[in-house]
Amino acid sequence: MALVVQKYGGTSVANCRRIKRVAQKVIARKEEGDDVVVVLSAMAGQTNYLLGLAMEMQAQPDKRELDVLLSTGEQVTISLFSMAVKSLGHDARSFLGYQIPVETDDSHSKARIQNIPTDKLAEAIDKGIIPVVAGFQGVTTDGDITTLGRGGSDTTAVAVAVALGADVCEIYTDVDGVYTTDPNICPSARKIERISYEEMLEMASLGAKVLEIRSVEFAMRYGMPIHVRSSFTSAPGTMVVKEDESMEDVLVSSVTYSRDEARITVKKVPDRPGIAAMIFNPISEANIIVDMIIQNTRAGDLTDMTFTVPKADFDQAMSIVEKTAQDIGAESVAGDKNIAKVSIVGVGMRNHAGIASKMFDILAKHNVNILMISTSEIKVSCIIDEKYTELAVRALHEGFGLDKKE
Amino acid sequence: MALVVQKYGGTSVANCRRIKRVAQKVIARKEEGDDVVVVLSAMAGQTNYLLGLAMEMQAQPDKRELDVLLSTGEQVTISLFSMAVKSLGHDARSFLGYQIPVETDDSHSKARIQNIPTDKLAEAIDKGIIPVVAGFQGVTTDGDITTLGRGGSDTTAVAVAVALGADVCEIYTDVDGVYTTDPNICPSARKIERISYEEMLEMASLGAKVLEIRSVEFAMRYGMPIHVRSSFTSAPGTMVVKEDESMEDVLVSSVTYSRDEARITVKKVPDRPGIAAMIFNPISEANIIVDMIIQNTRAGDLTDMTFTVPKADFDQAMSIVEKTAQDIGAESVAGDKNIAKVSIVGVGMRNHAGIASKMFDILAKHNVNILMISTSEIKVSCIIDEKYTELAVRALHEGFGLDKKE
Repeated sequence: MALVVQKYGGTSVANCRRIKRVAQKVIARKEEGDDVVVVLSAMAGQTNYLLGLAMEMQAQPDKRELDVLLSTGEQVTISLFSMAVKSLGHDARSFLGYQIPVETDDSHSKARIQNIPTDKLAEAIDKGIIPVVAGFQGVTTDGDITTLGRGGSDTTAVAVAVALGADVCEIYTDVDGVYTTDPNICPSARKIERISYEEMLEMASLGAKVLEIRSVEFAMRYGMPIHVRSSFTSAPGTMVVKEDESMEDVLVSSVTYSRDEARITVKKVPDRPGIAAMIFNPISEANIIVDMIIQNTRAGDLTDMTFTVPKADFDQAMSIVEKTAQDIGAESVAGDKNIAKVSIVGVGMRNHAGIASKMFDILAKHNVNILMISTSEIKVSCIIDEKYTELAVRALHEGFGLDKKE
Repeated sequence: MALVVQKYGGTSVANCRRIKRVAQKVIARKEEGDDVVVVLSAMAGQTNYLLGLAMEMQAQPDKRELDVLLSTGEQVTISLFSMAVKSLGHDARSFLGYQIPVETDDSHSKARIQNIPTDKLAEAIDKGIIPVVAGFQGVTTDGDITTLGRGGSDTTAVAVAVALGADVCEIYTDVDGVYTTDPNICPSARKIERISYEEMLEMASLGAKVLEIRSVEFAMRYGMPIHVRSSFTSAPGTMVVKEDESMEDVLVSSVTYSRDEARITVKKVPDRPGIAAMIFNPISEANIIVDMIIQNTRAGDLTDMTFTVPKADFDQAMSIVEKTAQDIGAESVAGDKNIAKVSIVGVGMRNHAGIASKMFDILAKHNVNILMISTSEIKVSCIIDEKYTELAVRALHEGFGLDKKE
């Protein structure tokens, strides 16, 4: 008999029929002898619908009021779900953020969980009642509603699991696990059985959209196992767990890609101390996140500075950089939105040399030109022309043997 | 400078455009120098929509969970409204039931307000912030969400006005006041300028659907003036206030009607002690409300028992009564759904004889047969054939001079 926290996302509770089906799944699990705590998102589309209403009211919706508005989405699903469980002859009880309470700081729209008292949830579990917790929402010490930001329900689920000392946190979604790469562009992609928190974090930040990053950080800090699985099948999904020795045998566990970045090059910059700060300070002051940076020395005292920014911020970044280029006497600024980032991730890299070279070899063999490179302990990323994205992903997936059974 | 509580109903906040218009109205009032507290209903149709979802989940939705669900309707409007006020350069702050808190008992779906602490609302008002209160909802001492039943936002508004010691509670609706009768069937109906709580209570219970009965009772108990007016015009509406001497000059202040009842007659009942209880106990045990009761003695020890029940409960009541009639040896049971109740209301009746006779005369002159009669201190009701409803209402309205200017 285990204590399991199950989180169901928006597509799993998108309508009344699906809510009923999830209720049946939860009850089946409880009847097998496990204690289950359920965390729910809003119905798919509801958060965007409410956001649209807010934008009609105020161009930049007030963040306190926006949290009051958006938190209704989960309030609807937890009450409907509790009714569904009751109609099937079991007992359930909905819990809003303020009722547990899920205590957060007061950073509206991106609040951080600070504490979750467990007495009310534990009391319900002891009585055989299935607690149904609203994801995504919390409450400040002043009693104001907060929300945790996009994907916040994953974080709620992991935090509740940690607070209750659950055996596992199951995240149900519309895919059946974490894949070696995107099956949509690489049909030989395989579901990964076990993956480390560190690898999952790299994958999440590199563009794989299965789990919200903060939930993985939270789980890693407290060693809470996450089971990512499909709400539409009963097949096991992917376990996200602490790194163990067996994982190191696999040099590369996944290939990811992202088309969300753009590249900017400042050409022939006078190479003197402080020049990098002069270029990057105005960009960071505009809240634009710079990812990769490369500096190429040219002949004389001139250098080229190349970096990437989110595609959505490209136009703003270009106009900032063009002004800076004039100020510092650089020759010109060039921008390129048609780039992609392909990456390989694996904890096995830590103890093996030559992984990066092999990646460059594979890309070269397929005539994919590498524009920029960045590495960390457990990943290597290359910026390439966007048109080669699928080719590069497939080549790397095959080249590192990810299409073969583990 | 006055302190005003303004309540806007579902049609006044039915969409984003209307919410903005209400925000403009509220701000205009504040700029005139009054302090304004706003109480809002859910968008028109939203409560019924949510109720429909609940019924899909559970035939008899769990009442605790239903309150969690339905209370989201007002949560949406108060947050959107607060954004609208802020976008117009003023400050507003939404308050949910649990945040004030609006303390109620734990009768889910029909909770009663027990206390409303005013410190948070008063603090907002002092700072020039417009408090925007969710109508219809409260919270138990255990922190569970409750709702006050249909029309509960009116009660919230009056209770908040009483707690704050406001000068007036303004109820904005889609009609511009209380009328001498229904203008839809009697074009000469006039708007009433002032009416007593008692008359308003009789009118509300007799089918005029302008104000929720409990809100009037609440206002009467604490002497809070209610101003019923249109959210679409700035014209004054109807003041509902304590009875004063001038009101007694008006013998009849309004004519109301209702087609919501049906009549059941148990014929030739053996007339012995306890027979009424035998007929009516099973009906009240089925939660069916009996309104009028008349007993006609026949020859011998037999009597006819006639009474009215809500039309919606007619079929159930008939089958209950038919069973009882067999048990007690009555001859037969007859039912009639084609009836209407027309009533005259006025505090002036208290001190004037002959009002009821005048009503019977007017109906007789128009060949309207009276099937049943019931009276109270300030009203007389007659059950008639449904087909005569419009005729009777117009005849009484003219006969008591309500079509003439006050």
